Amino acid sequence: MEAKLLLQDHIAKTASITDEQFDYVYSHFKPLFFKKGQTIIISGDKVDCEYFVVSGCLKAFFINDEIKMYILQFAMPTWWTSDYSALYNQTKATINIDCITDAEVLCLSNDDREKLCKEFHQVEHFFRWRTNKGYIASQKRLLSFMNNNVKIRYEELLALYPQLYNLVPKHLIAAYLGVSRETLSRLYASH
Amino acid sequence: MEAKLLLQDHIAKTASITDEQFDYVYSHFKPLFFKKGQTIIISGDKVDCEYFVVSGCLKAFFINDEIKMYILQFAMPTWWTSDYSALYNQTKATINIDCITDAEVLCLSNDDREKLCKEFHQVEHFFRWRTNKGYIASQKRLLSFMNNNVKIRYEELLALYPQLYNLVPKHLIAAYLGVSRETLSRLYASH
Repeated sequence: MEAKLLLQDHIAKTASITDEQFDYVYSHFKPLFFKKGQTIIISGDKVDCEYFVVSGCLKAFFINDEIKMYILQFAMPTWWTSDYSALYNQTKATINIDCITDAEVLCLSNDDREKLCKEFHQVEHFFRWRTNKGYIASQKRLLSFMNNNVKIRYEELLALYPQLYNLVPKHLIAAYLGVSRETLSRLYASH
Repeated sequence: MEAKLLLQDHIAKTASITDEQFDYVYSHFKPLFFKKGQTIIISGDKVDCEYFVVSGCLKAFFINDEIKMYILQFAMPTWWTSDYSALYNQTKATINIDCITDAEVLCLSNDDREKLCKEFHQVEHFFRWRTNKGYIASQKRLLSFMNNNVKIRYEELLALYPQLYNLVPKHLIAAYLGVSRETLSRLYASH
C-alpha cells in the first residue's frame, strides 16, 4: 500500500479526521528509504524524530557493558519507533535503531507532532491512543521478561509478530528473548 | 495537601484548564481510603478504574508460577496506577495492586476518562503526556532489567523514589529489583 494511504488508514482506526485535514497532517511527514543494515538512530545521537514504518522491519536495540545485544522492539509496517526517552526529554539516544531489511519509513519531528496535536484535538486523541498501546505492550513485555519463562516469551513473540519467524535471523530472535542461540534452537525444535 | 489541590496542581503542570473546568473534571473522581495491606486490584478481577495516589504507597505486582513475587511499580503521591492492559482492553487483571501503607487515592473510571478527554482537548493533552511519561519509564525499566546490572538498577530505583529507602520493607525492594534479599543486603552494605 502507498505510504500515504497506509498512514491515513492507520490513523482512521482511532481518530476521525477529514481528507483535507489528513493532507495537511501528512505534509509534515517526510518519507525516507533505507537499505538493509543502515542505521537510523545511534546511541549518543540527538533524537528529533519518530518513525512510522511503511515497509520492511527495523530493530531497536542496545549493547550492554559485556557487548551483549538486547533487542527492545522489532518495528514492522504500521508500528512506530524512536528512542522516545531521548525524543521527549531532549537527551542523547541510549538505544540504536537499524534496518533488518530494506525499509521505507515516514519521519515526523517532535516539534511537528506537538504542533499537530495542538492544532487538532483528533490528532492528540490519536497520539494518546498510540502511546497507550505502546505503554501496554511495554508493560506486558516487562512482565514477561520478569516472569522469565523463555518458552512463553517465545510463543508471545510469535503471536505478536507471526511474520518474524521467516523474516528475521535466529540470533536476533534470541537477542529479543534474552537467551542464547542454543536455548532458542531447542525451542524451535519443540515448536 | 488536599486531594483536590494536589490533582489540580499535577494537571496544571501539563495542561491549561480553568478552575471551573477543573471543578467539573474533579467531580468525576472518587476519593477512596485504604488501610495498609488492603488490596485494590486482584489478578482475575474486572478492571474499571485507574488510581491517582494522594498519599501513601501502593505496589503493583504479580506472582509467577513458582510463587515468586515481582514488583512492576511502586506508586507514590501524584503517580497513577492500574492494570492498564486490562483497563484498556477490557480483559481480566493479570496483576495485583495493594497498599504498602495506609493510602488515599482518587479513582477515575475508564468511561469517565474517555468522556473527559472527548469534552476537553486540554484533558486529552494531559493524558497523552501522562501516558508518555509512563511509557518512557516502562521502557527505561525494561532496558534496565535486560541489562541486568543489579547495582545500577538499585541506584536507579533510589534516584527515582528517594523516599523508598525508609518507607518500604527490604524484601519488597528486592522483589522490585528481581534479586534475592541476600543480594540486596550486600548492595545496602556497599551503599
